[in-house]
Amino acid sequence: VVDRAVTRVVTPGTLTEDELLASADNNFVACLTRSADPDDDPATTGEYGFAVLDVSTGDFYATAPPSPAAVADEVGRFDPAEAIVGPEVGTDAFPADCMVSPFDRTAFDVDAAAETVREYFGDPDSLLAGEAEVRACGALLAYAEYARGGAGEPATDDSEDATDPEDGHLDYLNHLTRYDPREYMVLDPTALASLELFERRAVRGIEGATLADVLDETACAMGRRRLTDWLRRPLVDEERIAGRHDAVGELARDPATREQLHGLLRDVYDVERLIARVSRGRANARDLRSLKDTLDVVPELKATLADADCDRLVGLRDGLDELEDVRDLIGRAIRPEPPIEVTEGGVIREGYDDRLDDLRETERSGKQWIDELEAGERERTGIDSLKVGHNQVHGYYIEVTNPNLDSVPEDYQRRQTLKNSERFYTPALKEREDEIFRAEQRADDLEYELFREVRETVAAETERVQRLADRVAALDVFVAFATAAAQYDYSRPTFAEDGIDIEAGRHPVVERTQESFVPNDASFDRDEFLAVVTGPNMSGKSTYMRQVALVCIMAQAGSFVPAAAADLRILDRVFTRVGASDDIAGGQSTFMVEMTELADILREASEDSLVLLDEVGRGTSTADGLAIARAVTEYVHDELRATTLFATHHHELTETARELDGAFNLHFSATETDDRVRFNHEVGRGPATASYGVEVARAAGVPPSVLDRSRELLARTTAEAVPNGGVDADETESDGADLVAADASAVAD
Amino acid sequence: VVDRAVTRVVTPGTLTEDELLASADNNFVACLTRSADPDDDPATTGEYGFAVLDVSTGDFYATAPPSPAAVADEVGRFDPAEAIVGPEVGTDAFPADCMVSPFDRTAFDVDAAAETVREYFGDPDSLLAGEAEVRACGALLAYAEYARGGAGEPATDDSEDATDPEDGHLDYLNHLTRYDPREYMVLDPTALASLELFERRAVRGIEGATLADVLDETACAMGRRRLTDWLRRPLVDEERIAGRHDAVGELARDPATREQLHGLLRDVYDVERLIARVSRGRANARDLRSLKDTLDVVPELKATLADADCDRLVGLRDGLDELEDVRDLIGRAIRPEPPIEVTEGGVIREGYDDRLDDLRETERSGKQWIDELEAGERERTGIDSLKVGHNQVHGYYIEVTNPNLDSVPEDYQRRQTLKNSERFYTPALKEREDEIFRAEQRADDLEYELFREVRETVAAETERVQRLADRVAALDVFVAFATAAAQYDYSRPTFAEDGIDIEAGRHPVVERTQESFVPNDASFDRDEFLAVVTGPNMSGKSTYMRQVALVCIMAQAGSFVPAAAADLRILDRVFTRVGASDDIAGGQSTFMVEMTELADILREASEDSLVLLDEVGRGTSTADGLAIARAVTEYVHDELRATTLFATHHHELTETARELDGAFNLHFSATETDDRVRFNHEVGRGPATASYGVEVARAAGVPPSVLDRSRELLARTTAEAVPNGGVDADETESDGADLVAADASAVAD
Repeated sequence: VVDRAVTRVVTPGTLTEDELLASADNNFVACLTRSADPDDDPATTGEYGFAVLDVSTGDFYATAPPSPAAVADEVGRFDPAEAIVGPEVGTDAFPADCMVSPFDRTAFDVDAAAETVREYFGDPDSLLAGEAEVRACGALLAYAEYARGGAGEPATDDSEDATDPEDGHLDYLNHLTRYDPREYMVLDPTALASLELFERRAVRGIEGATLADVLDETACAMGRRRLTDWLRRPLVDEERIAGRHDAVGELARDPATREQLHGLLRDVYDVERLIARVSRGRANARDLRSLKDTLDVVPELKATLADADCDRLVGLRDGLDELEDVRDLIGRAIRPEPPIEVTEGGVIREGYDDRLDDLRETERSGKQWIDELEAGERERTGIDSLKVGHNQVHGYYIEVTNPNLDSVPEDYQRRQTLKNSERFYTPALKEREDEIFRAEQRADDLEYELFREVRETVAAETERVQRLADRVAALDVFVAFATAAAQYDYSRPTFAEDGIDIEAGRHPVVERTQESFVPNDASFDRDEFLAVVTGPNMSGKSTYMRQVALVCIMAQAGSFVPAAAADLRILDRVFTRVGASDDIAGGQSTFMVEMTELADILREASEDSLVLLDEVGRGTSTADGLAIARAVTEYVHDELRATTLFATHHHELTETARELDGAFNLHFSATETDDRVRFNHEVGRGPATASYGVEVARAAGVPPSVLDRSRELLARTTAEAVPNGGVDADETESDGADLVAADASAVAD
Repeated sequence: VVDRAVTRVVTPGTLTEDELLASADNNFVACLTRSADPDDDPATTGEYGFAVLDVSTGDFYATAPPSPAAVADEVGRFDPAEAIVGPEVGTDAFPADCMVSPFDRTAFDVDAAAETVREYFGDPDSLLAGEAEVRACGALLAYAEYARGGAGEPATDDSEDATDPEDGHLDYLNHLTRYDPREYMVLDPTALASLELFERRAVRGIEGATLADVLDETACAMGRRRLTDWLRRPLVDEERIAGRHDAVGELARDPATREQLHGLLRDVYDVERLIARVSRGRANARDLRSLKDTLDVVPELKATLADADCDRLVGLRDGLDELEDVRDLIGRAIRPEPPIEVTEGGVIREGYDDRLDDLRETERSGKQWIDELEAGERERTGIDSLKVGHNQVHGYYIEVTNPNLDSVPEDYQRRQTLKNSERFYTPALKEREDEIFRAEQRADDLEYELFREVRETVAAETERVQRLADRVAALDVFVAFATAAAQYDYSRPTFAEDGIDIEAGRHPVVERTQESFVPNDASFDRDEFLAVVTGPNMSGKSTYMRQVALVCIMAQAGSFVPAAAADLRILDRVFTRVGASDDIAGGQSTFMVEMTELADILREASEDSLVLLDEVGRGTSTADGLAIARAVTEYVHDELRATTLFATHHHELTETARELDGAFNLHFSATETDDRVRFNHEVGRGPATASYGVEVARAAGVPPSVLDRSRELLARTTAEAVPNGGVDADETESDGADLVAADASAVAD
């Protein structure tokens, strides 16, 4: 029970370098500032400055979100583990699981920050849009230097081994990506969470998979990070998307090339992080060998891509730098499978340096002399049991058992007394020992010196290695997307202005966890863009709505999609409003959260957005909820005209859908077998019946008398409702009505 | 960013002994078996055998749950971190976070198990009710022995230090508590979770407090565990409850005694776990000193309780064993503040053993001789810079710098050559050195031997220490309950057959997190036992319902309650059915979970149960949900007659409450100030209005046109509903109606 395995969970913000290496994911630290300059025009420069950095890879991004909501979107996108904030900004922009660290206010000073940015990337004015952005980038760089231990606090490990302990400059940070959020589809934290792109929603201890999990056919850590990045920031430029699809398609059609590339990429190390360690003087000899192993793969990658056809693949192939100089240097200098320690020898190859080879020869011959000593001394003294040995404390000794002590020659000096023997040394032995020791010491020192020279030479090529890593990562994602496409029968989406037309679409995650998944069509255009979806829970409403969104996101990220065919439009944003739990002690309520999210959607959605609404209005009185749901439906229909799926339990809303030109009804239904409710998971036109709940209650074991009474009450309400509700028999599914009539006597009490 | 603090989270089932010590909570391993004997009568012996053990404290419980549901209740009660199961039982009785370990089938054999039980506790037939129980207990004991490393696998650490490495017997396991679940109020896992007794419900990363947290005024770890145990298993015997209340009351009225006891109890170590380590031969000298420090407190505890009046306190006082013999032995033998290692000396006091004192004297005088050597040798050789030193590798040496080497006497033998000096030894120095070394070694060995003798003597008193720990734990909980009662103005509940009558009750957790908490009455009797509660979310419905349950649970656990007065009835069980999240990938749905929990309640609740239903029927179509809600209300009213609070958004249900004799309406309402909806959190008789939702939507920022349209639609529905619903103007609150009429023009878009 005790003393067994210990599961160690480490918080993302406090990972040490080695622990980071175990995870392929990015580990971001963020910085947020707010524009203090009254001349800054928020329309062009944004109201905020936001920068994020992965210290382990050197990935550095900056942008200028125009509003607190946009800040929240960017925070959600990068999901930083840690953050620092300018003195003019509160910490509430970051979620509770992101540690906000205190940091020196002066680093946020605009002149200091601009100077820091200049040191790393060049002229801040040409790179960044405004003062807030410059301040965010400069402060974040300063923080990275501080955290690394360069400025002020010393690093806790291996600091003597760093190349520049005095100067905190991080040489591997030399590329800044400044982006405009409008270049990407917006996915706010609510959408990321409810669509389960990256974070599993653990419910009752059961963890499902995420979209990133099921698409992750990548072979290396760099690919996995790039995949995450692409899913977090789907493109909105049709040409760029098509470029990715071309590459995916070409590899999907060519299994031999794809598998060969995948096999090669499996031998690729995380050189993005590795070169960062090299640059910081933290890499050991194994790291250098890993870099060489990776470089060994590059010519083969190029050869495999010899027949590449599409622009992206050709571009990648031609851009792969073989770095022969680096590869050759490491190959000549560093032994294969070197030890982790770089100060204790065993690192540098024989033949690389004459002085080193001489020292090692001295060491070797000395040891040989000692090896031969035992036989010589036995002969000289006539003591057959005489032994030559070595221990850590006393060094080499000649051991003679007590009965033989009389035969010990005069030049033997006593070193140590044991119970049954004495240990001696001779001046000659002592001399040899000292010689070996000195040679060993000097050789180890020399190896370390040579190793550092090699490491510095490699460090000088950091940018080239980073460019290589960048291309390898993209290639890995193309191969992964192609693999998923081929393996799971995805198809290439097309884009048109008109609408969304998905034929036999599937939910990419759910279809993997279930034995049989029922594909469904989805069709929206300028004339019919709002669907009211009814049907029991468990029947597939939520899955259906999410799969529409996921197909669009995957397509814009560059992946093929789980559907027989998909003709899509470019979405600017996906909104979701789906169920949340009550938060009792916190004083929040489902309904307030629901309404706040709804208000955001009604304020921000455009005609190019996709909106998923799941049971809006269920946290209030039913009459009230229905009125709001109906008013929202009308508003979305008349004002926003966003493509919308609205799942509801308000059967009355199906009536509204019938009344509005651009709206239509969809439903899911159920059938019953052996006292169990079964869902066929097929979407159909028209509304569902309202009676499915009683059958679920029956399957769950609710007593028959309660069920009978429920049916009786329901029949009465429905009868009353007919004059107002006007349910059209033609459009209503009949499955549910059958269910109500089904025999319930077999249910156990 | 990197290399900062690392948060280490360790899973409960895999805690090592030291990590366990950091947490006061119990860490249970459970065992489940099923009756295989056709002669076993499930009515008397139960269908299952269930045993749980905390290996760190020796707490051992056994019972015979009659059904799978009852097994789930016991599993939920103890929340084991790990479990083993008989070959005839599946692992699905345990939740996903409980590790089910494989274990030797033969341990579940009835004869082997009976023999194991006999070894530990005596005759199994007189102790346990049936074969399944015997098998559960025996197998669990065998597993504990195995896990400890006695049988088969060796323990991973410190095993050479265990008293009986051959024999796995765990001497500190000598008390078995066999209980009947009917002796306690049943709290199933659903109720434990939704009432947040122990587990916080983390929502969006915000963690609230639990009932256990807010009542935890305990001073020591043993008290904290006992508090948890009492809350998990509230009593149903009125006399036993009154006994606890007497003790709490006496201490609540006497702050001086209470604070003195609390101060003393803070010096009490976790001797329950400590004595387990002593018994297993794993305790070190510090543990023994901690035991002595605890025993030092006992006479003071007794003295402080000299004037105790009530039976429980008098009984505890008289039962406190001062264990003078143990205390005296440790005091004489073990040094204060000894090192952690027990094999390297510094453990045994001077004066305890003559042989030891002699050896230490030899060591001391030898060292003194060496201390004086430097001066002597300087004088003898005339070398003023001569130094006597010591290092780990070469031992003592006399160091002479190179310029003085000519003055070195003949008896100096060279030990080591440095750059600027030589190091020597003399035969006399060598001799002294050996003498010191031998004395030190023998003294260390002797100390360890003496320490083990002391530890074994203490181990022989394990049962007495356990009894003391038991009483100290109960005393700590009484003091804690009294402290909470005094500090937070709790009152002593009374019990009557009639009903539940709480005057100005509060939610014990929520009242701590909010600046002002509005107390509310609750009144149920044989004639009016079913309340339909309406009102907006956030208005206090859920908090109100939970506080009624928590007051009853606290009272039966022995605590005073957060209310001005409370006249309660003894409840056999508390049921809850409150909101859950959808579980998308898992294929479950809110509604199925809801209906399954509801079916359990309808099957199991009695007239003596308290039932909380929160929005039953919201996972299905509204018409359907209403029919079920209404049928359930009637069933609870007509058949079960359990005290029930039913929160609902179906305004139509208030009508049902008016029609049923034993039912009545309660409502929460809201007022509006400065464009914000405010809740006064006051419960009132009668139903709420149905219009609160639109106002919340307004506060959340939903566009005015949507709000206006919602009001229009709502007015129409309400007008239509009047002929059917028949809302009685006298009983309806008017606050809500005002809200609808209020000016909405100030809301921002």
